[in-house]
Parts: sequence; structure tokens; C-alpha cells
Amino acid sequence: MTTTMTTTKTKQANIESVKEYFFQLQTEICDAITTIDGGEVFSIEDIKQPNGAHSRPRVIDGGNVIERGAVQFSYSMGDSLPPAASERSPELAGKGFQATAISMIMHPRNPYVPTFHANLRFFLVDNTHWHFGGGFDLTPYYPFEEDVIHWHRTARDACQPFGDTLYPKLKAWCDDYFVLTHRGEARGVGGLFFDDWNEGGFDQSFDLTKSIGNAILPAYLPILEKRKDTPFGEREEDFLLYRRGRYAEFNLAIDRGTRYGIQSGRRIESVLASMPPRAIWKYNWQPAAGSAEADLYENFLPVKDWLAKF
Amino acid sequence: MTTTMTTTKTKQANIESVKEYFFQLQTEICDAITTIDGGEVFSIEDIKQPNGAHSRPRVIDGGNVIERGAVQFSYSMGDSLPPAASERSPELAGKGFQATAISMIMHPRNPYVPTFHANLRFFLVDNTHWHFGGGFDLTPYYPFEEDVIHWHRTARDACQPFGDTLYPKLKAWCDDYFVLTHRGEARGVGGLFFDDWNEGGFDQSFDLTKSIGNAILPAYLPILEKRKDTPFGEREEDFLLYRRGRYAEFNLAIDRGTRYGIQSGRRIESVLASMPPRAIWKYNWQPAAGSAEADLYENFLPVKDWLAKF
Repeated sequence: MTTTMTTTKTKQANIESVKEYFFQLQTEICDAITTIDGGEVFSIEDIKQPNGAHSRPRVIDGGNVIERGAVQFSYSMGDSLPPAASERSPELAGKGFQATAISMIMHPRNPYVPTFHANLRFFLVDNTHWHFGGGFDLTPYYPFEEDVIHWHRTARDACQPFGDTLYPKLKAWCDDYFVLTHRGEARGVGGLFFDDWNEGGFDQSFDLTKSIGNAILPAYLPILEKRKDTPFGEREEDFLLYRRGRYAEFNLAIDRGTRYGIQSGRRIESVLASMPPRAIWKYNWQPAAGSAEADLYENFLPVKDWLAKF
Repeated sequence: MTTTMTTTKTKQANIESVKEYFFQLQTEICDAITTIDGGEVFSIEDIKQPNGAHSRPRVIDGGNVIERGAVQFSYSMGDSLPPAASERSPELAGKGFQATAISMIMHPRNPYVPTFHANLRFFLVDNTHWHFGGGFDLTPYYPFEEDVIHWHRTARDACQPFGDTLYPKLKAWCDDYFVLTHRGEARGVGGLFFDDWNEGGFDQSFDLTKSIGNAILPAYLPILEKRKDTPFGEREEDFLLYRRGRYAEFNLAIDRGTRYGIQSGRRIESVLASMPPRAIWKYNWQPAAGSAEADLYENFLPVKDWLAKF
């Protein structure tokens, strides 16, 4: 594998190259989504602090296809790593750190298009410890099996250069993470998740991060293109809004990224740009037996191996 | 004070009498709201467990005046007190307990009517420690100063029999608790809050709890009656929905009651019956200078002594 060669060349973590990659990926993703949306474009705010911290939130609001979407780049540093950033290495909490990240979410208008979330991040703590983290996951409303298989195939292909066992590992990690624990319900159909990651050294870990980052558009765009013009009515929109309530629950009550954002005192409008533009809650609602809505709960949310046949 | 006499008569905590009071208060409040609403009535579910646990959620949904409201009674017990139930007495966490509570929330349709929340609870831990807690708070959208003064006057009157210093103490406690820490913003205009409360012994603490419980309808109903037919348009409704997003943030990310509900494995639809039926999030929105919406942020959310003139 070429990654092994690269590892021997550069032993030092290079945060500049990670920043550069995340920054360029942001532009690429915003451009692609803007083209498909055909209505709104992404706003750009460029916020630079005297200490060198840099955030660039980009938000699309009220588009033709995307009701709201956010793609955010950030580079920050601090004297004390927040606990939520290092749950698996609690000894790092409280130490000086630098962090760079790209995170994104798309809330489509059409209930046949899934909501999509991705995040990639790099932490350099105390100038000695470093780790990558991130992944992507898909949250459909009215799912199609072929879309979910495409999503997971693309995820597997991104992991394949790093060995056969990686996709099953990161897929299971994702299934474990994106759970509404208070409901015993998955957020969606998963994807990839990794954290506190430094396997094989900096270059190999960065290569994996790039491989996953480069898979984001190939994983999501074909589904977006295929489903964005599917006719729908009030019933489907109602269910979309109801399930977005689950998204709000996960983000606010469970998500480690949101907790990190709140704990680290990041600009709150950036942290919560991931919130759905509209959501509803119903009391004690259940889908009717045999309905399209029940199909989501019965056949898509329970964890399964989507690539068993492939 | 009669409360002192009562205290000497009964030294034992009597959870049965607390349950009975909460149960009867639930009926009284639902009846009063139903009368004003004139459209929907409260559902009743009566859920009894083999171990004696009893919950009775009552929900009004799609009423004329109340878009959604919940008034819930519960009595429960467990082998291990959840940490969120005893933050001020961490040594109690993990011990056997009984708890009874009434909690309620009203999400009105009209943006000129505030959202209202109240909660009263009693914990008996290890059959030896006990404490009361609860309070009520008001979350207006387009507030009127006279309504807020009425609200706080009623709160003060409920505390008055227990000494002059009690209202300022519980009012300040409420102001401290209902803060969206991630936004540095109050949830609303406050009210009363108390917790881990056993001052003066069981009978006096129970008398205070009843005094606050009995003040709920006198505090809220006059405001509801006066404002429920105020004409409003899309702009006001939009702001109502936007501010309900803040309510969702507080409930899911901050509220100790919700965290307790999630940690204790309570029926999740009951715990989250407090969620707004509809909510919206805007990215980076600010009220226009001098607008009615700015008035809320500038003149009502900052903590103040509403009764300074009275």
C-alpha cells in the first residue's frame, strides 16, 4: 500500500495540510450542492480571530432542493481541551490543543431524499498527541433499499484501501453512535464513524480521512439527484417534519459534536446550524401497520448488513 | 404561623398525602384549561405497573387556545436514584427511592399568550432522606409588562406566608436555572424554583409546595384569558415558532427534569410531551432594532426585579 510508504516519509502530524484539505473540500461540496439546488447559493462568513482561529460557516437557506444546509470549516485552539473532545482519552482533557474540522448537514425539502451528515476532524493536543475522527451517516424518511446499498457500498469502497476489516469496524461504530438511546431507535441507516484515530501513523490516518472525505459527494449526490423531484404530498411532508424532531433530539440531547461545540464556547449559530429549519413533535404517535412510514421503522432503522448480498 | 404547629404534629414524611395532592391538582388544572380552551379536552392514560408505579399523562392536542399542553402525574420507585435527581446531594445517587411529581406545560397558539411550565416533585430516598422541588416559570413571545408583574406578584403571594426572604430567593433560583447557557439568554421571565427542599421539616415544606401549586392557576389563567383572542399574523406566528426552538433547546440540552426522565428510563413519550408541537430554527437571525421582537430580548429576558415598584 502506498500509505505505508508515506508513513515512513513523514512522522510528524501536519495540521496545516489537514486544514488545507478540509478547506478545499468545503468549497468542492458547496459548489456541487449549489449546482444541483439551482436556487440558492451558500453564504460565506469568514471569521478570523486575533489568535489565529478561523471559522468559515457556509449556509444554504431556502433552496429549491435543500431547505437548509450547512458546510462549516473551522480551525481553533484553546488552553483546555473540553471533555467531550476526548472521551476515550480522558487524560487529555484540560490540555492545550489545536483542532480543525469540517462538518456538514443537508436538510432536503423532499421526503424521498435522506438527510445527510458528515464530519471530519483533527485534534493536536499538547503538541504531542493527535487524532482524527469523523464519518458520515444517512437519515432517510421514505427510504429505497438501492439507495442505502449505494451509500454503504461507497463507504466500503472508501475503506477498502486500508484493509478488509475497516469498513465493518467503522460501520458498526457508526451504528453504535447514532442511536437515540432514550428511544432505543437508530437515527438512520448509518455509514461510517471513527474517533481518536491514529492507526498506522499520521500519514495513513490522514489518507483514510481523505478517502472518506472524498467519498462524501459520490455517496450522497446520486441519491439526491435521483429522488429530488419525486412527487410528494402533505402526508409525506408531515412525516419528514416529525422525523426531523428526532434529528433535533439527537443533536441537542446526545450528539458529542454539539456538546463539544457548546462546551468549547464556539459560536452558537454555527454549532446549531445543523438544526432542522422546521420540526414537529406529536404525542405518542405510531405509524400505521403496513404503511410506508412503518417500513422505515421495521426495515431500515434496525441495524443490518446492507452489503451482505454484495 | 400554622405551618409550625403542623410541623410539630407530624415529623414523618408522608408520601401518600403528597401523591394525593398532586393527583387532585392535576384534575383541577386540566378542568380549568379545558373550560378556557373550549375545543379539545385532555386525554387520560392511566398506567399502573405491577410494582405500584403509577403514571397518568394527560395531554391536550390541537385545541382552540392550547396547541399542545400536557399535565402529568407520576409516582415511581427505583433501586437506584439517577444522578440528575440529586445534584446537590450526590451521596444519595444510587440509593433506593420513591418519587411523585406533577409537571405541566402549555404551548398556546396565540403568540401574545406566554408558554407556561410548572413542576412539583417529592423524593423519598432510602426511606430516610426526603426533599421537595419544583416551581413555575413563564416564557412569553410578545410580552406585556402588566402580565409579567401579575405573574410575579402571584408568585410572591404564594411565598409570603413563609417569610419575606423566600420569594426573592426562589425567584433568583429560577433566574439562575432557566438559562440557555450556550446562548447566554434567559428562557423567559422566570418565576419560582426550589429544589432539595426540606426547610422547616416535612409539613412546612409540603405547605410551601401546596402554596405554590395552588398559585399556578391564579398566576396563569388571567393572562391566558386576557390575551388568547389578540389578533396576530404570520410575522407573530413565525416568531412564536422561532422562540419555541429555544424551548426545545432548553428541554433537550439543559433541563434537569428531561435528563432525569431520560436517565430513569421513564416512558419517553411522557418525558417529551413537553416538546413544542411545531418549532423552527433560523440561521443567525436577529430581531430588527426597535421591533416588538427586540423588545422581548432587551426589556424582558434580562433578569430584573419585576416587583420593585410594588
